[in-house]
Amino acid sequence: MSYGMIATWRMAYDGIRVGIVDLANCGSSQKAIVDAIKIVEDYPFYKSVGYGGLPNEVGLVELDAAFMNGDNFDIGAVAGSRNVKNPIVVAEKLSHERFNSFLVGDGVAKYASKEGFELRNMLTERAKKTWENRLEEMSKSNLSPYDGHDTVSMVALDQHGSMSCGTSSSGLFMKKEGRTGDSPLSGSGFYVDSEIGGATATGLGEDLMKGCLSYETVRLMSTGLTPQEAVNQATMTFVKKLERRKGKCGAFSLVAMNNQGEWGVATNVEFSFVVATDRLSPTIYLAYPAEDDGYPTIEVASHEWLDAYQARITAPIK
Amino acid sequence: MSYGMIATWRMAYDGIRVGIVDLANCGSSQKAIVDAIKIVEDYPFYKSVGYGGLPNEVGLVELDAAFMNGDNFDIGAVAGSRNVKNPIVVAEKLSHERFNSFLVGDGVAKYASKEGFELRNMLTERAKKTWENRLEEMSKSNLSPYDGHDTVSMVALDQHGSMSCGTSSSGLFMKKEGRTGDSPLSGSGFYVDSEIGGATATGLGEDLMKGCLSYETVRLMSTGLTPQEAVNQATMTFVKKLERRKGKCGAFSLVAMNNQGEWGVATNVEFSFVVATDRLSPTIYLAYPAEDDGYPTIEVASHEWLDAYQARITAPIK
Repeated sequence: MSYGMIATWRMAYDGIRVGIVDLANCGSSQKAIVDAIKIVEDYPFYKSVGYGGLPNEVGLVELDAAFMNGDNFDIGAVAGSRNVKNPIVVAEKLSHERFNSFLVGDGVAKYASKEGFELRNMLTERAKKTWENRLEEMSKSNLSPYDGHDTVSMVALDQHGSMSCGTSSSGLFMKKEGRTGDSPLSGSGFYVDSEIGGATATGLGEDLMKGCLSYETVRLMSTGLTPQEAVNQATMTFVKKLERRKGKCGAFSLVAMNNQGEWGVATNVEFSFVVATDRLSPTIYLAYPAEDDGYPTIEVASHEWLDAYQARITAPIK
Repeated sequence: MSYGMIATWRMAYDGIRVGIVDLANCGSSQKAIVDAIKIVEDYPFYKSVGYGGLPNEVGLVELDAAFMNGDNFDIGAVAGSRNVKNPIVVAEKLSHERFNSFLVGDGVAKYASKEGFELRNMLTERAKKTWENRLEEMSKSNLSPYDGHDTVSMVALDQHGSMSCGTSSSGLFMKKEGRTGDSPLSGSGFYVDSEIGGATATGLGEDLMKGCLSYETVRLMSTGLTPQEAVNQATMTFVKKLERRKGKCGAFSLVAMNNQGEWGVATNVEFSFVVATDRLSPTIYLAYPAEDDGYPTIEVASHEWLDAYQARITAPIK
């Protein structure tokens, strides 16, 4: 039986390499998602997820995450999590709770402490330095404080036909205390139904939650559309609608996979993503938006691109 | 031009009586929603919304609320709000922010303080007593601590053709610290598009967020279904799906109105709601679920029912 994973951004690669081995060995989609996202959370050079994620305006790292089981629709989510080493692991655990499965703020670390999860100060020296530099730049110019909101989010299909998805994000750099985006919100940041498929998002959370695009992508797949048709139609229809009704639309990028392991992506910005299936070893792609709301142009990331990426994220910060 | 409001639960009545006057006087749907929900939040005898809302397991009142503008899809939301007098007012204000429009935990009161909103200890003597009594009952029996999750949520259509919706809730009684439900989640607790209609929910948030039913109801209205057809199809299809896939489904009740002022409700439990339009003075209805997933039976609440309700919510607590 087919199996596979699709995930947002280059940073998902090392996680996907582990998750796909889980799936090849008949492991569950739940395990693959948690294993994969945990690796991304733990790598200190990814500045928008987990340890090393950039802090909010007062210098605190606050993280959002969610997990969804496509068999029974169980959802666990956290928003504004502080000092919890792996938000995705806590979210997965919460998904088994009939009540109190979405926790915010202080409540996350209190729950994690009581349940024996690992705590950690999630602020790295590097992230602190980046924050200090931004404060200084902001004091000198009218620079918008907000940029960088790259959520790692992914969908997995296992050999038993079960699907799951997960998200993890530090949200907007320099966000206000307690700000959350779409990542922990069902239907917006993620949605999965094992009988159909799943979709997850990254981009400007404030705008993504206006469209419920992950839910809409899954719904369109249920009508017979391929993942590429579904995710493109859901995303581009709403991008146009929001531009018409609000006058502007933030960055939107979505990935989707159906329960046959077919996949698709939609985006209105340049966007990297990772796919692995039983027929495709883990591969990093770049997607470029079409000018006419058609399908994005997709190409395998070049060695030059990958080298430049690694050099950029690990470059010393003065 | 038609105008109207529909809202969950009997407790919405006094608010709807004020909101409908706003609408009759050509006021905006935004103003009608905020005015109406503020009244419900301020009334100390409604134990699941605002001042007088029941506290979490450690005795703190934590509130969720959201506001959505159906013209441009602007959303503002708060989860786990403490010590803020009117969460709905803060949510409406947040809806005007391009970034940081959904705040959780500490962040809500910090934002509200800086922006000059009124703060208040939201715990009443009555709520404290109810909490103490429940703790004692729980120590004596295996009673589930969780019950009572009646969100006030409503949709409004104004004479200019604009629609808005809002929600406000103290969530589950005895919830864990930081627990949030569907009320602040776009697509689950609420959704509105002025070119189509709006829908809002109340019930078990942990299950409501599995289905994105407010979004789905609005989507079905966009295909030409009446509000009654749309809300019933969205709700009952998912109730059956969740029963099949998870083995059980919590309480779900939704209200919907389209941009012609037509309305509908769906529920799998006995449920009271309030409607007012240009042709209907504010009216309290009771809905009883159909046995066959058909439309609920709807009747105007009797004087006996209303008297018993008022006596119950204001009865002395020992």
